[in-house]
Amino acid sequence: MEKELFAEVEKRFYEARFIKELGIELVSVAPGEARSKLTVQGSHLQQDGFVHAGVVATLADHTGGASAWTLVHTGQTVLTVEFKVQLLNPARGPVLSCHARVMRAGKKIAFSEAEVTNADGALAAKLTMTLAIVETGRLRSC
Amino acid sequence: MEKELFAEVEKRFYEARFIKELGIELVSVAPGEARSKLTVQGSHLQQDGFVHAGVVATLADHTGGASAWTLVHTGQTVLTVEFKVQLLNPARGPVLSCHARVMRAGKKIAFSEAEVTNADGALAAKLTMTLAIVETGRLRSC
Amino acid sequence: MEKELFAEVEKRFYEARFIKELGIELVSVAPGEARSKLTVQGSHLQQDGFVHAGVVATLADHTGGASAWTLVHTGQTVLTVEFKVQLLNPARGPVLSCHARVMRAGKKIAFSEAEVTNADGALAAKLTMTLAIVETGRLRSC
Amino acid sequence: MEKELFAEVEKRFYEARFIKELGIELVSVAPGEARSKLTVQGSHLQQDGFVHAGVVATLADHTGGASAWTLVHTGQTVLTVEFKVQLLNPARGPVLSCHARVMRAGKKIAFSEAEVTNADGALAAKLTMTLAIVETGRLRSC
Repeated sequence: MEKELFAEVEKRFYEARFIKELGIELVSVAPGEARSKLTVQGSHLQQDGFVHAGVVATLADHTGGASAWTLVHTGQTVLTVEFKVQLLNPARGPVLSCHARVMRAGKKIAFSEAEVTNADGALAAKLTMTLAIVETGRLRSC
Repeated sequence: MEKELFAEVEKRFYEARFIKELGIELVSVAPGEARSKLTVQGSHLQQDGFVHAGVVATLADHTGGASAWTLVHTGQTVLTVEFKVQLLNPARGPVLSCHARVMRAGKKIAFSEAEVTNADGALAAKLTMTLAIVETGRLRSC
Repeated sequence: MEKELFAEVEKRFYEARFIKELGIELVSVAPGEARSKLTVQGSHLQQDGFVHAGVVATLADHTGGASAWTLVHTGQTVLTVEFKVQLLNPARGPVLSCHARVMRAGKKIAFSEAEVTNADGALAAKLTMTLAIVETGRLRSC
Repeated sequence: MEKELFAEVEKRFYEARFIKELGIELVSVAPGEARSKLTVQGSHLQQDGFVHAGVVATLADHTGGASAWTLVHTGQTVLTVEFKVQLLNPARGPVLSCHARVMRAGKKIAFSEAEVTNADGALAAKLTMTLAIVETGRLRSC
C-alpha cells in the first residue's frame, strides 16, 4: 500500500524536469507526508557560498506538493497557489533534507508546511504553502 | 553613474552560480529597482508543462535582492530573510520578465516586491520579501 | 453605477462587527479596488505606543476583501485563505489610510494587495492575500 | 524561574492595550514558547459569523511575540517585521487557543510559528513570523 503510494507520487515527482535537473530525490511518503533530499552541488550556490534561496524554496515547495499528492483522488492534481519561505540558517551541503506534511486538505484547497534541514541538524528553512486541488483535465480552472 | 551602478550589481548578480545555471539575465537597474529576464527552457518546467514555481521564485527573489543591492553601502550585502510568492497565472515561455523594487530600506532590514510577467503581459507571480542588510565580513551575524 | 457598487460593498463591509468595533471606515470603491481609513485610538496600540500589528493587518485584510467583493457575482462572497503583512514603518495616528487592489481574480481564487499609509505618507504596511471565491450558501466548501 | 518568566512576559503582554481590549489572555510560557486563549465575543466576528481573520491574526501574532520575549535579554524587546497567517478552518467560539514557539532566535532576528485551535481541536490558523530583536531605547533603529 505504502509502496504503491510511493510509486505513484514518485512518478509525478520526477515528471517535473526542473526537479531532475537539480537532483532532488524523493525519499519516502506516507498519507499526508513526504520526505526528500538534495546533494548540494556547486551549481546550487549563491554569491556567498550558501545554497541559493531559490534551490531551498524549490526543494520545500516540490516536497510540499508531494505531501498533498498523497491525499488527492485519481484524476486530480495540485498546483501551488502561494508559498512563503523563511531562511533561518544558511543552507549548506553536503546534503539538505526536507520533510513536508499536510496541515489540512479540503475539497479544493490544501495547506502544507515543510522544513529543510542541514546535515548537522540546523533548520535551514521553513515553508508554508497553499495548494489548489484541481482536476487533471482543467489545470487552468482555478 | 547608472552605468557604474549596473556594473556593480551585475557583478554580484552573476556571482551566484545558480543564477547563471538557470540563465537568468540582469536587464537594468536604477536606485531601488532592478529588472531581469529568463528565456524559458525545457529544464525549467514542472509536471504540467508550466515553469516550475521554484524557477519563478528564484527569478523574483534574486531580482528583489538586486533591487536592494542598489541601495546598500560598499562593504554591505543583503541576505534573503524570507519571501512569499503568489502564482497568479501559469508561468510560461518563451520569456519571463521580472521587475523588482525596494518598498523600504532601513539600516538593517529592507523590504522589496517583485512581479514576474509572461511575454503576453499576464502577471505570473507576485513576490514580497524581507532582506537583512549585513556587513560583508559578518554574513552569519543576523 | 459606482454609487451602487459602493452601497453594496459598504453593506458587507460593516456586517463584520469587528470592523465596526475598531472604527474602520470604507472610503471609496471602484471595480477591483477599495480604500478605507482608521482614526487611531488608544485602544488600538501595542506596548511601545505604535498601532498593534493586528489592527494594521485587520485594516489591510478587510479592505483587501472589499476590493475582491467589487468583482464577484451576486450570490458569491470571498473568504481570506491567507495573507502576509510586512510592517515597514511604525504605524501611528492620527489616521491610517488603506488602499487595496485585486491583482488577479479567477473563478475560484482571487489575489489582492493592500498598502497602509500613515498620515505623513510613510508606508506602514504592505499586505498580499489569497481569497477563496465561494457561493454564499456554501461557506465551508473550500 | 518559570514563574518569574511568566510574570515578566505577562507584564509586557498586557501593556498592549489592543490585547486587553480584545480579551486575549496569556496562559503559560516556557523558554521559546507561549500559550494564550481568547473567549470569543460577538464583537470579534466577521460578516459570516466566524471570528474575523484580524482577530485570529492578532492572537497568533501577539503570542508569537511573547514566545520570542522569553528568549531576549533585559533591555531588549521584539517588533514584528512580518507575519503570514493561513486560515485552515473557520475560527469559531466559544474559545480559541494559541500555541506559539520560536523556530530560531539569532542576535537580531527571530522566527516564530503559531497555531490557533478551535475548542473542538480543529486547526483554525497557522502563522509564521519574523521578528526584529531591538534595544528598548532604539525602537526605530531597524
